[in-house]
Amino acid sequence: MSSLREVGVAMLGYAFMGKAHSHAWRDIPLFFWPPPAIPRLVTIYGRSGERVREAALRYGYRRYTTDWRQAVKDPEVEIVDNGLPNNMHRDPCIEAMEEGKHIVCEKPLARNASEAMDMRDVARRTGVKAMCAFNYRFVPAVMLARRLIEDGVLGRIYHFRAHYLQDWIVDPSFPLVWRLRVEDAGSGALGDLGSHIIDLARFLVGEVKAVNGVTRTFIEERPLESDPSKRGRVTVDDAFAATLEFENGAIGTLEASRFATGHKNYNCFEINGEKGSIEFNLERLNELRMYIVGEKATEGWREILVTESDVHPFIRAYWPSGHIIGWEHTFVNELYHFLRCLVEDKPIEPYGATFEDGYRCAEVCDAIIESARMGRRMEIVYR
Amino acid sequence: MSSLREVGVAMLGYAFMGKAHSHAWRDIPLFFWPPPAIPRLVTIYGRSGERVREAALRYGYRRYTTDWRQAVKDPEVEIVDNGLPNNMHRDPCIEAMEEGKHIVCEKPLARNASEAMDMRDVARRTGVKAMCAFNYRFVPAVMLARRLIEDGVLGRIYHFRAHYLQDWIVDPSFPLVWRLRVEDAGSGALGDLGSHIIDLARFLVGEVKAVNGVTRTFIEERPLESDPSKRGRVTVDDAFAATLEFENGAIGTLEASRFATGHKNYNCFEINGEKGSIEFNLERLNELRMYIVGEKATEGWREILVTESDVHPFIRAYWPSGHIIGWEHTFVNELYHFLRCLVEDKPIEPYGATFEDGYRCAEVCDAIIESARMGRRMEIVYR
Amino acid sequence: MSSLREVGVAMLGYAFMGKAHSHAWRDIPLFFWPPPAIPRLVTIYGRSGERVREAALRYGYRRYTTDWRQAVKDPEVEIVDNGLPNNMHRDPCIEAMEEGKHIVCEKPLARNASEAMDMRDVARRTGVKAMCAFNYRFVPAVMLARRLIEDGVLGRIYHFRAHYLQDWIVDPSFPLVWRLRVEDAGSGALGDLGSHIIDLARFLVGEVKAVNGVTRTFIEERPLESDPSKRGRVTVDDAFAATLEFENGAIGTLEASRFATGHKNYNCFEINGEKGSIEFNLERLNELRMYIVGEKATEGWREILVTESDVHPFIRAYWPSGHIIGWEHTFVNELYHFLRCLVEDKPIEPYGATFEDGYRCAEVCDAIIESARMGRRMEIVYR
Amino acid sequence: MSSLREVGVAMLGYAFMGKAHSHAWRDIPLFFWPPPAIPRLVTIYGRSGERVREAALRYGYRRYTTDWRQAVKDPEVEIVDNGLPNNMHRDPCIEAMEEGKHIVCEKPLARNASEAMDMRDVARRTGVKAMCAFNYRFVPAVMLARRLIEDGVLGRIYHFRAHYLQDWIVDPSFPLVWRLRVEDAGSGALGDLGSHIIDLARFLVGEVKAVNGVTRTFIEERPLESDPSKRGRVTVDDAFAATLEFENGAIGTLEASRFATGHKNYNCFEINGEKGSIEFNLERLNELRMYIVGEKATEGWREILVTESDVHPFIRAYWPSGHIIGWEHTFVNELYHFLRCLVEDKPIEPYGATFEDGYRCAEVCDAIIESARMGRRMEIVYR
Repeated sequence: MSSLREVGVAMLGYAFMGKAHSHAWRDIPLFFWPPPAIPRLVTIYGRSGERVREAALRYGYRRYTTDWRQAVKDPEVEIVDNGLPNNMHRDPCIEAMEEGKHIVCEKPLARNASEAMDMRDVARRTGVKAMCAFNYRFVPAVMLARRLIEDGVLGRIYHFRAHYLQDWIVDPSFPLVWRLRVEDAGSGALGDLGSHIIDLARFLVGEVKAVNGVTRTFIEERPLESDPSKRGRVTVDDAFAATLEFENGAIGTLEASRFATGHKNYNCFEINGEKGSIEFNLERLNELRMYIVGEKATEGWREILVTESDVHPFIRAYWPSGHIIGWEHTFVNELYHFLRCLVEDKPIEPYGATFEDGYRCAEVCDAIIESARMGRRMEIVYR
Repeated sequence: MSSLREVGVAMLGYAFMGKAHSHAWRDIPLFFWPPPAIPRLVTIYGRSGERVREAALRYGYRRYTTDWRQAVKDPEVEIVDNGLPNNMHRDPCIEAMEEGKHIVCEKPLARNASEAMDMRDVARRTGVKAMCAFNYRFVPAVMLARRLIEDGVLGRIYHFRAHYLQDWIVDPSFPLVWRLRVEDAGSGALGDLGSHIIDLARFLVGEVKAVNGVTRTFIEERPLESDPSKRGRVTVDDAFAATLEFENGAIGTLEASRFATGHKNYNCFEINGEKGSIEFNLERLNELRMYIVGEKATEGWREILVTESDVHPFIRAYWPSGHIIGWEHTFVNELYHFLRCLVEDKPIEPYGATFEDGYRCAEVCDAIIESARMGRRMEIVYR
Repeated sequence: MSSLREVGVAMLGYAFMGKAHSHAWRDIPLFFWPPPAIPRLVTIYGRSGERVREAALRYGYRRYTTDWRQAVKDPEVEIVDNGLPNNMHRDPCIEAMEEGKHIVCEKPLARNASEAMDMRDVARRTGVKAMCAFNYRFVPAVMLARRLIEDGVLGRIYHFRAHYLQDWIVDPSFPLVWRLRVEDAGSGALGDLGSHIIDLARFLVGEVKAVNGVTRTFIEERPLESDPSKRGRVTVDDAFAATLEFENGAIGTLEASRFATGHKNYNCFEINGEKGSIEFNLERLNELRMYIVGEKATEGWREILVTESDVHPFIRAYWPSGHIIGWEHTFVNELYHFLRCLVEDKPIEPYGATFEDGYRCAEVCDAIIESARMGRRMEIVYR
Repeated sequence: MSSLREVGVAMLGYAFMGKAHSHAWRDIPLFFWPPPAIPRLVTIYGRSGERVREAALRYGYRRYTTDWRQAVKDPEVEIVDNGLPNNMHRDPCIEAMEEGKHIVCEKPLARNASEAMDMRDVARRTGVKAMCAFNYRFVPAVMLARRLIEDGVLGRIYHFRAHYLQDWIVDPSFPLVWRLRVEDAGSGALGDLGSHIIDLARFLVGEVKAVNGVTRTFIEERPLESDPSKRGRVTVDDAFAATLEFENGAIGTLEASRFATGHKNYNCFEINGEKGSIEFNLERLNELRMYIVGEKATEGWREILVTESDVHPFIRAYWPSGHIIGWEHTFVNELYHFLRCLVEDKPIEPYGATFEDGYRCAEVCDAIIESARMGRRMEIVYR
């Protein structure tokens, strides 16, 4: 046991994602015992020296830096984990890969398909392990959904409908944060929330053939963060809606919004197939609802509590049945998967999302924006 | 009391809608006491002489006929209630109105906007009371939703999302019934189910400005009813999905399907506004879910059991609180509303749907079909 | 068809139960076609001449009377349906049976086991059809529950837990109505609500062996109906709770209250067996929740929408699947069952409740009161 | 920051509770930053040398031992955390307290009230911080419930009803583990599960005055763990049910079972008060359902998602709203509370459970057993 391999990790970013990923790296050995390797928290990067120093202490990194290139080149580091804002995805990831580091990058992979394609190309060329951190694939209930579909339990798929709803900017006095500026974020609800459900659509149903979308910016100006007495322009979508055509003939609807009052982190989807249907909602992430055609008198939507350690994916690591896990465990599962693939030299896909997946998701996002602008159906072309 | 006015009713059709409407006419006086008038069940029309004779006995009509013109012209009749298939909506309704009869017509008002416009024009010219029987407006929970929105409880509306899901033709061996042939039905899931949610969109949120849709026919051939060894072509949509833009700036998604395994009569909608949201589902029609921004620590989606006789619309007629009503009571409420408007000479709108509403709904349906065919956004033009 | 037998009905009482039963008698032929017989609404009894005259007109009775003996002896009457307050159950029922009339009596059968035993004895001696109107047996979901248990789907039963919760007298200014006086009602929440769940316990699980209860009267004095400036003593229980031991070894809990804020007509039960469990709630009476031990990865509580006309009990009479029925239909089903048993001369039991069932339920109620008074477990002795 | 105090912890037990507590001690600083102190994982005790060595490595303890006395006396240790089986609660806790160590002990505090009283007495005499680890008090939704009741939001309380249901021993071939033997566990479902809901009853509603219970052992013999071909006697209850009388006049029902098929960790309670009601279920631990009397047209049971970091208790430490936490976080919250009380020298109560609370809970458990044995109501006497 004492001979467990250690793998050095550099974390880029100390805020929301920095906390979630750091926590996950730390928890892997406790839950997945014996772990494929022990993550060694080597260094953390952040813009503010004071805050990154505190983050290093809090999360347990040995070093910290305000120069991301330093973190990326650190010789003790094998994995670079990028949790920075979207405009800081491409360059650090590419430089890390060029240094031969394995890479985890938060979603959306980049601000648009062009940037994402650059990253995908470097990943392909360097051959490092590169994962786009679509963590909701690693919700046990979602992984069970995937398995059920793969096993043909639902039969031919007819419908996919997903919406990812939040309400944190309904108040017009909420400030113009980076997520509301196109140069930083690339897009709004679409890239932030929509990318998750586009990835789930591809993960669960298959490749997207065409889209038709509409976007809205309901509140067009907001107070500046630096000086609330001044206002600046919101340059991303507050919400979008789209119809979806899959290559396999299924159709779907997609919707994401930051103006859906009453929904906090409501990422839900439903899939209808010829033999059955499934439904999921992230606010009750331990549950999968399923309907299977069978004995007619007792057919019904069943709530599967996805906490059975001997049969449900990724749950064995945790607690006895009925003892639910939380949102943060999606990261523990995801980074565990990455670590295992790295140590055992196995592909990230099909269960983890690659940079190819991240790129394809970006193409769908771009097509939705273009379709909304032009008022017409866009076929997706992957390059 | 004994001086209660009687109003003669002719029913066209004895099947599903014939049963639902007949039952409702009979129940009005028992529940809404004293009633505006006593419906007198004069005559019922149907194609099969034997079956219409039995229907007359069962439902309590004094006469029956296999000639709809006879029913429509019957001098004892003041109200003609048309529950026939969609291809039998225009002519009997127009002839009834020309005879000076008041008219109730099942939805969709016609097979397409052109037919519906004809009917609307005659209604306008003759000045009879003419209602398109969008009965789901008369679910107490839906009427409460309307009242809350009118009262500004939700504030500015941002989102509408509705789907009406059924699964009764998932089995490919299900026969080619009239609802699956364009010449009889006009359209498939769109006209049958979609028309309901389009009407609710207009009733609750406002006029539709543009649509963008996709349709699918998943099973293209089915056994003939007359000879199951032969197959015929399904000429309507099995399902559709569309995005919606409202004149007031809100956006939405619409979807209807007869291939949504596990859903029997799942007509649901959700509306998000700046101050709150509401949600409804016809399979739990006594409930309205509502979220209102307020005291943050105790905000939450609340399940309003819409059975409080002293405060909820149309429920006083029935039972003490918590004693739920069923699907059939939407018809009792709707026809009671019609009868009251007739006797008191008040307009059907805004709570009941007029032929103008029926026509506008048909324009939206047609635009969805056209948009799906052309792959582009269609603006709605009302004539 | 024109040769359908007619059966004359006399209704005792025009209020809540008078309305519910009258409506049901009228609806039987429309829904259950062809009906076993056509109920002929002959006469209705009530204390107030003016109100009973109006009720006769509203519900469709040919005659009315303020002398119950006249109704009970009416030669055109074959069925006497007693919907009067509990203190008016024994004498009219006994006199009707002595006249050879068949009898339906609202629950609880009487104010106590002694009265109920008298009624049971006369029913036994005269051999008329005698049903205690425990209408919740006739909820399709409850009837399905019974069938599942009979078929062994749940295996050996371990647990029964039921509560029937309302909140209509939480306000201390609510007046001292008849239901709050022991001389009229016999008991409070126990007889009114508890009797329903005791009957369901016996119907679904089996005979009760022993009970242990506690009762409470939270508000001890209330304004008089006749003069709200004066107050009178509440002489029944506002709520009770009890543990239950069944003869088959299962244990259970029972609870009923009129002080359960937020519950309007919340009659729910859950049954746990070795192979599965079921759960029901009257406010969602079209649904039965069921859990069956099976394939572990996809086990879950399923919501069965009990509206499938070809497989679910008593639902064929109504609408296509997913079109829910309401509370009132329990009466249509129940009285249809009674009418069919009468015409076909079959026993009311085991699906309908007999006067023996009504009597046994009263013994359990009396034992709960006695146990609460004495602070000890009471074994039930049926005589 | 580097001057943060460290507090040494000794863990007794490495199994289920050892894992949950160790994880929590590790996570405190990451979530509750800055922490009151940094828990230093000094040593862990377990019976099996090999397994305790691995546990030390996995959880991060510096030392391990197979002699609990060594752990308890370790001079680097300030806190002893006892997660051993119930028969190993009294002696190690007492010895730790005599050594001046602060103490956390898993629930139930002991096998019976007599043992628990011994522990309570030593805690009182030594004055160390002593917490009985009723972790469900530290579910944010439960803490919110407590706050709402304290603030009078529900008004006078009428009803408490709780059941804690599991199904892990329904299979008769499940072996005779320590939890099924009276000498190890003290009692069965009662002490294991019932103690949680008794503690919640006391925490939320108030002191218990009297109980009336029934217990059952459905499967009386089971295979031995050591030799499955032999069978041994189950000497604890598989399930119990009880009625409850509170000192404040409220009544309640309690039930716990390991035979409630379909329930995995279903710890639920409902409380009805004059102004409102609340409901909770551990399988959806991020939600609290609440009904408040208000505007009648829009009253309803609301689902409060208890994840608002600025208003909900103990949730600020985690994630943005809607990002749910899991079962394990109850321990993080609880041990954080303990650590803070220790460092700031504040009392554990009223939010944490003391050894007095643990003792009182044991008295209620003992009274339920006695009441079931004697068939009569038992008043609780606290000594």
